[in-house]
Amino acid sequence: MAVTETIATTDLEFARLVGQQLRVDSIRCSTAAGSGHPTSSMSAADLIAVLIARYLQYDWNRPKDANNDHLIYSKGHASPLCYAMFKAVGAISDQELMTFRKFGSRLQGHPTPAIPWVDVATGSLGQGMPIAVGVALAGKYLDKLSYHVWALCGDSELAEGSIWEGLDKAGHYGLSNFTAIWDINRLGQRGETEFGWNLDAYRRRVEAFGCYPIVIDGHDMASIDRAYGEALSNTDKPTVIIAKTIKGKGFSEIENKDGWHGRALPPDMAERAIKELGGIRNLRVKTQKPERVAPPRRSAATQPVLPAYKKEDKVATRKAYGDALLALASIPEVVAMDGEVSNSTHADEFAKAHPDRFFEIWIAEQQLVATAVGMSVRGYKPFASTFAAFFSRAYDFIRMAGISQANLRLVGSHAGVEIGQDGPSQMALEDLAMMRAIHGSTVLYPCDPNQAARLTRLMADTPGIVFMRTTRGAYPTLYSPTESFKVGGSKVLRQSARDRVALIGAGVTVHSCLAAADALAAKKIPARVIDLYSVKPVDTRTLREAARVTRGRLVVVEDHYPQGGLGAAVLEALAEDPPVRLAHLAVKGLPASGKPEELMNAAGISARHIVAAATKLVGSK
Amino acid sequence: MAVTETIATTDLEFARLVGQQLRVDSIRCSTAAGSGHPTSSMSAADLIAVLIARYLQYDWNRPKDANNDHLIYSKGHASPLCYAMFKAVGAISDQELMTFRKFGSRLQGHPTPAIPWVDVATGSLGQGMPIAVGVALAGKYLDKLSYHVWALCGDSELAEGSIWEGLDKAGHYGLSNFTAIWDINRLGQRGETEFGWNLDAYRRRVEAFGCYPIVIDGHDMASIDRAYGEALSNTDKPTVIIAKTIKGKGFSEIENKDGWHGRALPPDMAERAIKELGGIRNLRVKTQKPERVAPPRRSAATQPVLPAYKKEDKVATRKAYGDALLALASIPEVVAMDGEVSNSTHADEFAKAHPDRFFEIWIAEQQLVATAVGMSVRGYKPFASTFAAFFSRAYDFIRMAGISQANLRLVGSHAGVEIGQDGPSQMALEDLAMMRAIHGSTVLYPCDPNQAARLTRLMADTPGIVFMRTTRGAYPTLYSPTESFKVGGSKVLRQSARDRVALIGAGVTVHSCLAAADALAAKKIPARVIDLYSVKPVDTRTLREAARVTRGRLVVVEDHYPQGGLGAAVLEALAEDPPVRLAHLAVKGLPASGKPEELMNAAGISARHIVAAATKLVGSK
Repeated sequence: MAVTETIATTDLEFARLVGQQLRVDSIRCSTAAGSGHPTSSMSAADLIAVLIARYLQYDWNRPKDANNDHLIYSKGHASPLCYAMFKAVGAISDQELMTFRKFGSRLQGHPTPAIPWVDVATGSLGQGMPIAVGVALAGKYLDKLSYHVWALCGDSELAEGSIWEGLDKAGHYGLSNFTAIWDINRLGQRGETEFGWNLDAYRRRVEAFGCYPIVIDGHDMASIDRAYGEALSNTDKPTVIIAKTIKGKGFSEIENKDGWHGRALPPDMAERAIKELGGIRNLRVKTQKPERVAPPRRSAATQPVLPAYKKEDKVATRKAYGDALLALASIPEVVAMDGEVSNSTHADEFAKAHPDRFFEIWIAEQQLVATAVGMSVRGYKPFASTFAAFFSRAYDFIRMAGISQANLRLVGSHAGVEIGQDGPSQMALEDLAMMRAIHGSTVLYPCDPNQAARLTRLMADTPGIVFMRTTRGAYPTLYSPTESFKVGGSKVLRQSARDRVALIGAGVTVHSCLAAADALAAKKIPARVIDLYSVKPVDTRTLREAARVTRGRLVVVEDHYPQGGLGAAVLEALAEDPPVRLAHLAVKGLPASGKPEELMNAAGISARHIVAAATKLVGSK
Repeated sequence: MAVTETIATTDLEFARLVGQQLRVDSIRCSTAAGSGHPTSSMSAADLIAVLIARYLQYDWNRPKDANNDHLIYSKGHASPLCYAMFKAVGAISDQELMTFRKFGSRLQGHPTPAIPWVDVATGSLGQGMPIAVGVALAGKYLDKLSYHVWALCGDSELAEGSIWEGLDKAGHYGLSNFTAIWDINRLGQRGETEFGWNLDAYRRRVEAFGCYPIVIDGHDMASIDRAYGEALSNTDKPTVIIAKTIKGKGFSEIENKDGWHGRALPPDMAERAIKELGGIRNLRVKTQKPERVAPPRRSAATQPVLPAYKKEDKVATRKAYGDALLALASIPEVVAMDGEVSNSTHADEFAKAHPDRFFEIWIAEQQLVATAVGMSVRGYKPFASTFAAFFSRAYDFIRMAGISQANLRLVGSHAGVEIGQDGPSQMALEDLAMMRAIHGSTVLYPCDPNQAARLTRLMADTPGIVFMRTTRGAYPTLYSPTESFKVGGSKVLRQSARDRVALIGAGVTVHSCLAAADALAAKKIPARVIDLYSVKPVDTRTLREAARVTRGRLVVVEDHYPQGGLGAAVLEALAEDPPVRLAHLAVKGLPASGKPEELMNAAGISARHIVAAATKLVGSK
């Protein structure tokens, strides 16, 4: 009973019919799946129809074309609409549309970049729009191309603080190439939203946050059309289109009714709905292709000349990071951003030398990570830095970036009790656990400046979410500038065939392990020392060999809470290799303020504790 | 050279002198410590001086008095000012003030509740104010007492989205008992803030977010005085005092100069500063004591009558949580809040029956947790719920709540690939790692409804951060309603003295372990099955016994990424007890959409994978 109509016209009546088709297809695919969000798709169908029929510039055959607009479904649960749109523009077949939410289909419950036309995974609300701001920043300041960045938002997600972090930065950076489309359908998952249809409340907020609001009826095709035109011609501010819409629009039985969030229509209702919407259509929208403009020529990458530190230097790894990041500027894709602490993380060296490639995000860590994700979408190599503890503020963004398989470099300074006087609020003591648990992540933790600089270099070419933990204080330089390191590597700093125990540390505790090994040697206990700088992936072979030589006697020392950190990394690696008898020194109590050495002592992670643990272990059966 | 003056007058000239004393003491203690934030303290000194001399109602001898106002330093780095204030009101001695930031002193780098007059730990910016909103919610809707809640904020932290989540809820709930004091000193850690002294930009935002802004000169005592008076008499909206201030105010050498953030003055400068500020004073401020009003009588707690499920019932643990939370309403301190998903977490049962004790926070997880922390400050037993994955949005708040040693109950539903079609954005696969790494946390994961209900009951009386993970789908009921559970416990569901392998699961994987044990029994391989429902603390004794009987052959199965979860919990517990040979089944790839059983199968955590792993392990040496 499908109705096939001719295409080509781009008038508003055609867009109206496309809107009906998008609704019908949203219903069809979700009813077939038995789950999904048809009603949240139906409210935004007209907004998307006008966009793809008359404004979006996108070559669906070349999703990687640098001139394409970007369209991010921040309301990722409107995936039926997103996929129905893919069908309408001819990117997928109707048959594929009907695989929605089925095992093995790329059309998952929420969009992910498993689909070539999807920039980032969404579904955790309040993230797509901030990431779109990051893409628009790249468009305006790095690519300098005229593509426009569109983000479709639901109204429930406007309660997320991250939305306001995003609008604030869009306003601050004058992102006139950015338009957020807010689908105000009044109904959230469990009833009315905080503001319902109080569009004026939204308008005032948007204005106050430095953006240009346009309030419209989201089902009036002419109004939508005018709003998009205005958004594109508004060249000094980002635009937010605040569209009053109706959830379930087009099917009278459920329009504007509570209780229909996230529910597929049962087959009989779906049939009535499709009938009311004019039946199944196979309209084909010819999206405008973008004008082909070559991106500005970038200078060719040259091999960075990394800083080199002498044996007698005492340089904090955070400083070495700053020096190395500056050197990495010879790779044109490297860009950096920081959460208003660049003079502590030392990202300020790069910021001063390359202000055109540095973005100050102020104290808004969610937007800090969102900006990095957006830059990653555009093929840049973003390095985002703040105190390691404060990446916990953006953990959901990092989690979603893992699902997006984005390429981020996150550098967290001021880790552990080692920071001293500032006290526990500034101490990252759970960052290794949190970063290890991210899908496909790499976790690095250098102990000396030459290592920190070389790991920074490695980060530039390592895909996925790469986290490096740097240290506040300065410690002896252990490695020469010619030493090489690798993701998944480790360094054995002391060893003999007679080692009776292995001392395993990373970062600041490597220095305690070395001191402990000296003390143990004086007690005639030969101890192997392993610098496990690659916390994930971990060097299982070296750990296994150490366990073999020492008959499983390992001491792991970390400036981190006991759960999920370096100790867990070692145990997980050796889980299937008995026998291991592991003494685990970590920060077990709640730390306070004091000098670094006082706090490390109080936490039981100093050299003397290592000596005691190793001695006891060696004496055990 | 200390100047001692008589007290008692509360006129503004006295307040001015108190302000100078607060500045002098902020300088003295930080210079003695060699670190700290004197300049950020000096900008806010007049604001605090007028507050304590003329408005704050607080009995410093009875910090737990229910009628006391609350004053939270959201800008926790202004700890010198906070501690100088404690001296001025006579709560601490000058001698103690000078222990600032020293090892063993309760006067840490940033305030923590180790000090009786501090409600919550601050220092991660943008948290104190949202928590103050939670306290004010308790004041207006639960305590129904007339105390006022004051929050002192810095300007850099206004970039945090959490500030706007907080103001939005303050406005929505009409918290006229709440006043935020914004110390706009223009300078952040590394230069000018985003808005500098553009007070009007702040004013517009505050207004748009439903609060009442008052813009003043933060060094004009009369203006400050009028603003506080207005804040208290403004009875329909929360107030935000936007005060233009000068960083380093009072010491001309550094006033309004960049480069002095977070730096103690060197001794010679400190001497000149103290001289310019009029020397050391020991003024004593007599804070007004609050009127003693008895809090409204609460009905006495009665023992909750927990729901009971029959063997033949198939009830999801999230539903059992909802039922149990409803039963817990018989404990008058139990309150609940949710992030607009209460019909999924099943907190809606409580919400419908007890709307006066339920708070809808909408999709703003940071404010969700902040509200719970604020309620915990007032002695309530908050249960906050959302999808487990979305607690990652509030991880920094949870981290800080751990430092505050707040008592929170967090319940996260929809964990793991088990959720099925919705896809990875909605799947908590790192929550066990993230929650285990919180200081003093308890992590629970029930597998059946009777267990879920009884663990919910336990949560009410368990101090610290208690997290329970619940499951979307319904599985067989394994336990009788009379079964008892404890924090740190486990249940051995199958055992014999001849067990050759132990299968360890929690939540949904317990059911797979039981099915696997049946299959192994058919292969004449007796397998022990352990339900490790208390993931932290973990039942080391039972694990040790299982390792002994099976000669270390353990299979751990979890619906979680491989890092830091159940496997790590087991390995950490048995680290010192060889030999253990642990096969670890977890979600190693990136999941997609599908039916729960398809996804668990694809992830390799189904019964057949357990059987294969156990068989291989039993066959190994």
